[in-house]
Amino acid sequence: MNDDKKLYETINKYFHPDSVAIIGETSRSGFFWIRNMISINYMGKIFPINPKYKSALGIKFFPSILDVPDKIDNAIIAVPRKLVLKTVEQCIDKEVNVCIIFSSGFSETGTAEGIRLENELKELIKGTKTRIVGPNCLGFYCPESGISFRPDFPSNSGDVGFISQSGGNAISLGLRCSTFRLYFSKMVSFGNAVDLTAADFINYFRMDKKTKYIGMYIEGPRNGHEFFEAIRKTTPVKPVIILKGGLTESGAKAAQSHTGAISTSIKIWDSMIHQSGAIPVYSFDELVESLLIFHYCRYPRGNNVGLMAVSGGSSVINTDACAKFGLNIPKLSTKSIEKLKQTVQSVGINITNPLDLAGSYFDLRSLRSALSTLGEDENIDSIIIEVAIQYIYMTNRFGIEDFHEVFYKTILGEIRKLRKESQFKKPILVAFPPTTFEEERIWDRLRFIKKHIPAFHDVASAARALSHLYWYKKYREQLGKKIEE
Amino acid sequence: MNDDKKLYETINKYFHPDSVAIIGETSRSGFFWIRNMISINYMGKIFPINPKYKSALGIKFFPSILDVPDKIDNAIIAVPRKLVLKTVEQCIDKEVNVCIIFSSGFSETGTAEGIRLENELKELIKGTKTRIVGPNCLGFYCPESGISFRPDFPSNSGDVGFISQSGGNAISLGLRCSTFRLYFSKMVSFGNAVDLTAADFINYFRMDKKTKYIGMYIEGPRNGHEFFEAIRKTTPVKPVIILKGGLTESGAKAAQSHTGAISTSIKIWDSMIHQSGAIPVYSFDELVESLLIFHYCRYPRGNNVGLMAVSGGSSVINTDACAKFGLNIPKLSTKSIEKLKQTVQSVGINITNPLDLAGSYFDLRSLRSALSTLGEDENIDSIIIEVAIQYIYMTNRFGIEDFHEVFYKTILGEIRKLRKESQFKKPILVAFPPTTFEEERIWDRLRFIKKHIPAFHDVASAARALSHLYWYKKYREQLGKKIEE
Repeated sequence: MNDDKKLYETINKYFHPDSVAIIGETSRSGFFWIRNMISINYMGKIFPINPKYKSALGIKFFPSILDVPDKIDNAIIAVPRKLVLKTVEQCIDKEVNVCIIFSSGFSETGTAEGIRLENELKELIKGTKTRIVGPNCLGFYCPESGISFRPDFPSNSGDVGFISQSGGNAISLGLRCSTFRLYFSKMVSFGNAVDLTAADFINYFRMDKKTKYIGMYIEGPRNGHEFFEAIRKTTPVKPVIILKGGLTESGAKAAQSHTGAISTSIKIWDSMIHQSGAIPVYSFDELVESLLIFHYCRYPRGNNVGLMAVSGGSSVINTDACAKFGLNIPKLSTKSIEKLKQTVQSVGINITNPLDLAGSYFDLRSLRSALSTLGEDENIDSIIIEVAIQYIYMTNRFGIEDFHEVFYKTILGEIRKLRKESQFKKPILVAFPPTTFEEERIWDRLRFIKKHIPAFHDVASAARALSHLYWYKKYREQLGKKIEE
Repeated sequence: MNDDKKLYETINKYFHPDSVAIIGETSRSGFFWIRNMISINYMGKIFPINPKYKSALGIKFFPSILDVPDKIDNAIIAVPRKLVLKTVEQCIDKEVNVCIIFSSGFSETGTAEGIRLENELKELIKGTKTRIVGPNCLGFYCPESGISFRPDFPSNSGDVGFISQSGGNAISLGLRCSTFRLYFSKMVSFGNAVDLTAADFINYFRMDKKTKYIGMYIEGPRNGHEFFEAIRKTTPVKPVIILKGGLTESGAKAAQSHTGAISTSIKIWDSMIHQSGAIPVYSFDELVESLLIFHYCRYPRGNNVGLMAVSGGSSVINTDACAKFGLNIPKLSTKSIEKLKQTVQSVGINITNPLDLAGSYFDLRSLRSALSTLGEDENIDSIIIEVAIQYIYMTNRFGIEDFHEVFYKTILGEIRKLRKESQFKKPILVAFPPTTFEEERIWDRLRFIKKHIPAFHDVASAARALSHLYWYKKYREQLGKKIEE
C-alpha cells in the first residue's frame, strides 16, 4: 500500500467510525454532541464520557474513556482547554484513531499559553497511532455513515466534498447548499490544524470516488508548499473551488485571532491559486453558486452565451455582467433570426442577442420558440434565462388565473425537451432577480432546482458561475484531459 | 421667472396633470393605460381616445383628441408607430402640454425609417407649446397626484426621485424598493429622449423639495455636457446615484438597440461621474441598497466600522468585505474591552473588532451589552450586525419556544435605545446572509425595515452601501457644505 492509499484508508475510517466517544466536561457540551451524532442516524456505537452522569437519551455514560470496554475509533473532545492534554493522553492510551478537538483557546488566542498548549498537543501524539483534527474545530460530517456536527444537516448524501478551516462557515455552507438540494459526500471542519491539515483532506477528497467537486474555506494553510502541491495534483481530476478569508490586511488580522492563520496578499494568493488550477471565489454567495453550476451543468463548448429577458433595460445590464466575466454575447445565426422573425410576436422586439422578448415573453408559443431557437443555434454555447416574476404574478394575465403555473410548465417543458433531444447539450441557467414577490421567488427557484436546472440570484451571479465552469473546462483541456461536454 | 424656475414649473405640471388623454389604437393598449392611471387613485379627468369604442370602465371614449371639449394636460400615446406623427400633430393642435410616447420603433431600431421618424417628431414640436417624453418610454409616476404607468406601484409617497431611460428597469426598481418600504416622490421613464432629456429631469428633481435622493438608470445621455452640468449642480444639494447600462462593448451594442444610446468606456464614465459628485453603482442590487442606506441612515462621522457576528469565519470574510470597500475596522477602546470582558460570556470569544460573539450572541444580556458597547465606543462610527438566522431558528433553544421573538425584541430594543439616547447617532446596519430559512429571512429583514433600520442581503452589501454614504458625506464636506451628522 503506497502512502496515498494509506492516507485515503486512514482518513476514510475517520469518516466511517464504528464507535465514537464524546468527552464533555459539562452536560451541555456532551448532550450537544450526542444530539448531533444521532441526528442523521449514526448506526455505530456512541460512548458519552462524563463522570457526572450515569446515562442520558438512553445511552450509558462512562466516567473515563479508559473505562469503555470496546475499541474507540473517533473521540470528540469538548472539555475546557486545561483538560484537553490529559484527555488526549487517555485517548492515546486507548489507541483511539482520531481526536476531534472541539475545545478552543489555543494558538488562535495569540497568547503564549495558548501557543504552548498547542505545541504540547503536537508533541504528545508524535510516534503514536492517534491523530488530531483541530483544535478549535467541528470535525467530520458524513451522511453515508451518519456522523454529523450539526443536528439539522441533511441525511442525504451528495457529491460535494467540503473542507473548512472555520466551523461556522462549514455550518453556513451546509445549510445554504441544502436549500439548493446540493448535498455532500463528506465535510470536515479542521480549525487550527495542529496535525491533520487542509492538504491531507484535499488529498483524501481527490481519491474519494464519491466526491466529484471540492469546495474549501481557508484562512491560512499551515504548510503552503504541501497545500499547493495537493491542489495541483487534484485539479486535473476534479474541480477545487476556494474561498480565502483574510485577503485584506484587516481581514488577515481577524483571521489571526480566529484560527491563528498567517495571511498572504491577494495578488500572490490569486496567482498561486490560478496556477494550481483551482478556482478562487470571493464571497459565500459565489462559493455556493459555483458548486451549484458544477453540480447541475455539463461543461459548455465555448464561452458564447445566449441571453433571454423580458426587458431591454435588464438585457443591457445582463450583457454588461456577462462581458465583465469574460463571456461573449455573439450574434444569432441567420437561421435563428429567420425562425424567430416568423414565430415570435414582433411588437417592440429586436431579434438579436440579448433577446429582449418584451410582451412576447408571456406568449407561450413565442416563449417556446425563443427557447428552442437559442437551444439549436450553433453560435450559442450556453443559455441564461432571466425570469422577471413581477410580470408573471400580475393578477389575471390574459384572463388566466395562476398564469405562473402555465408559464413555468412551458419553460420547464421546453428545457427538458432541449436536454433530451438537442444535439447540443448546452448548460441552461435561470436567474430570478429580486422583486416584490420575494416569497414566490424562493419557491420558484426551488421549482427549477428540483428539475436539476440551476437557478441563480440574478444574471450577474449566473454569469460569474458560468465563467468559472468555462475556465475550468479550458484548464482541463490545456492539460490534455478533455472533459466530456 | 428665471429659466430654472420655469423648467421646474413646467415639468411639475407634467407630474400633476388635471387631465390625461390616453390614445390607443387597440383596446388592449388603451385599457392597459386606463388601468394604470386609475390604479393609485388619480382624481383628475381621464379621456380615452379610440374611435372603435364608446366607453369602458364607466369612462366615455372620444374618437379623436380634437373631439374632447376640455383642456388636455398630458397625452399618453400608445398607437402603432406609423400613426404617432399624426397623433402628435393633433396633440399640438389641442395644445396638450406633454405627449408621453409609449410607442416604440424609432431610433432604437437602428433603421433609417426609425431614425427618420424620430427626427420628424423633433421637427414637429419645434416652436410649439407641446413637449415630448419618449418615444419608447413609460412616462410619469407620481403617487401624490395619482398618476402611474404600472397598476401595482405603491400609492405611498416617498422621498426618492427616480429617472430611468428604460421602462422595464423603472418598473423593477419601483417594485423592489417598495419591498423595503422605500417610496418615491416621482419617477420618470424617458426612453429615447427626443425632446426632454435626463438633464431636464435631474434639474427638476434638484429643485423638487419632495425629492431628497435621486436615483438613475441611464444608457447614454443625449447631450453629455448638459447631463454632467446638471449633475454637478445637483450633487451639492442632494445625492445622485447612477447605474449605467452599456459599460462593456457588448453591453453598449445592446443599449444601442434598446434606446439608441451611444456609449462611453467604463474608465471615462467612472471618472466623469465621480468628478461630478455622483455615486456610480454597477448592479440593480447596489442601486437599491444605496437608496436604502441614504433613506434610512444619518451620515457617519468617519469610516470606522464595528462588526458583530456569531462566527469567526464570517467575521473574517466580513472584515475583508469592509476593507475592500475602503472601510476601516479599528480597535475597540480600552473602556469597551474592559466592559465587554465583564459582561460578555467568555468561552471562545476574542474581545476585539470584528466582535465574534460565538455562543454569547444568543445570551440576551451579552448581546445587549455588546451592542451598547459598540454604540458608545468613540473609535466606532458605524455598526454592522450580522444576523445568522440559522442559529436563531434552531428548535427550542435554551428551552425557549419562538426564541427568535425574544432575540429580535432584544436587538431592536437596544438599537432603539442607542438611537434615542446615545450621544453618537451612528448608522446601524443589519445583514441577513442567505441560509436555509429563506422565508423567515424575508420577514425578518422586513421587521427591521419597519423599524427604519436598513437590512441588507449580507455584510458585503451593507459595507458597499455604507462606503457610498461615507464617500458622499466627504464630498459634501470638501465642497464646504457640511451635512448634519
